[in-house]
Amino acid sequence: MKLEENPIFKKYFENLSERERAVFEGGITLGALFHQFVGTPVSAKNKDILEKAIEEAMKNQPCVYDIKVEIKGVGEKYVSLDGKMLNVHLKIKINKTIANLKLKYIEDIDYPLMYVESFEEISH
Amino acid sequence: MKLEENPIFKKYFENLSERERAVFEGGITLGALFHQFVGTPVSAKNKDILEKAIEEAMKNQPCVYDIKVEIKGVGEKYVSLDGKMLNVHLKIKINKTIANLKLKYIEDIDYPLMYVESFEEISH
Amino acid sequence: MKLEENPIFKKYFENLSERERAVFEGGITLGALFHQFVGTPVSAKNKDILEKAIEEAMKNQPCVYDIKVEIKGVGEKYVSLDGKMLNVHLKIKINKTIANLKLKYIEDIDYPLMYVESFEEISH
Amino acid sequence: MKLEENPIFKKYFENLSERERAVFEGGITLGALFHQFVGTPVSAKNKDILEKAIEEAMKNQPCVYDIKVEIKGVGEKYVSLDGKMLNVHLKIKINKTIANLKLKYIEDIDYPLMYVESFEEISH
Repeated sequence: MKLEENPIFKKYFENLSERERAVFEGGITLGALFHQFVGTPVSAKNKDILEKAIEEAMKNQPCVYDIKVEIKGVGEKYVSLDGKMLNVHLKIKINKTIANLKLKYIEDIDYPLMYVESFEEISH
Repeated sequence: MKLEENPIFKKYFENLSERERAVFEGGITLGALFHQFVGTPVSAKNKDILEKAIEEAMKNQPCVYDIKVEIKGVGEKYVSLDGKMLNVHLKIKINKTIANLKLKYIEDIDYPLMYVESFEEISH
Repeated sequence: MKLEENPIFKKYFENLSERERAVFEGGITLGALFHQFVGTPVSAKNKDILEKAIEEAMKNQPCVYDIKVEIKGVGEKYVSLDGKMLNVHLKIKINKTIANLKLKYIEDIDYPLMYVESFEEISH
Repeated sequence: MKLEENPIFKKYFENLSERERAVFEGGITLGALFHQFVGTPVSAKNKDILEKAIEEAMKNQPCVYDIKVEIKGVGEKYVSLDGKMLNVHLKIKINKTIANLKLKYIEDIDYPLMYVESFEEISH
């Protein structure tokens, strides 16, 4: 049984709508991803496997439906992963509601922004 | 100007209700706190200042209205901070909506759970 | 040019013997690995790729000659990576000196210990 | 009893000279500090307490005799702590040997460098 199917776990979320629950879990996963992996040594040599390993780690989090991680601006020289280098698309699914979330560096405010791009209703 | 008052920042959140925004920001802050500080060396000697420093660090995050961090189970011997030792109360304020969130270890599911305890509407 | 071949970089280490330099760089890499990755969500599903991604990330660090990371005690349920689950063999090479270092949980002292297992002198 | 006075702990370090042991423990502590705290939200409001909390956390690590942490380039706006902002002086003591270590951003190589500044022999 997945954690999110456990009745004890589920009763803590009865006070949230599907959309509220979706953005709450999405916020947790984006905040977790950023603060877990910022600082990791990265260069052209390990960029691909690091992107994949971040995706697979975060798929363990409750309600993560899909996630795509892109690390930008990596060269030959290794650097510590900076939040501004992260480009993340995250899908959270709560029953028939899907929230599409993003972590993306927004140059105008010089800030790696986490936001909800859209919601979808699916039939199953 | 605080980041969350910047019009460019604000337009990214026009698609969310106050409650949705509150739990989204709350999720980010709880996920960030957990994954930033888990692993920190902690003993009876530095427990108090670490709790306070975590609170003050997280107050920088957008829309954090108040936060109280308690680290449980600390003895003389130092250990790496484990998520199960964290007890966090977080208040997020979006206009007149306040979300009360918690990070708390739930023994029945052996899991440090992040959840929304309640919402409040305030008059100002 | 690798960072460790840069003359500006090199002059900071002229006061160390090869063995001293090797254990200094080894200590940095073990401390970095532990505190970067502790907290990462891990289950049977992402254990292998996480081990590999940690290895490849740490190979960026100066003077890392080889590294093998094993994550122990992972089951179906996901947990936050705990330092006690890590079993790491690290080889640091400074000219003809190789230091073999370990991070390993020592039950008798209930502590994930970092230590130097041995030194080798190689002919090239 | 402190961990470093435990005979089981001590026997793992019999193969190292005092200087080797000192720089090994120093490397661990600097690597740990960097990768634990990089990413932490910091602004003028929490800079002082964060510096102090990092110092007190790292004093738990074996053989740390003294440590001074300075976070540079902090303004009103909050940012994620970057390794380039850290200026750390660390003293490790092994019997009568003290190693003075630094973490400091070196502009010429655009790198937050960890190195051993000097050794001291003390009489007690």
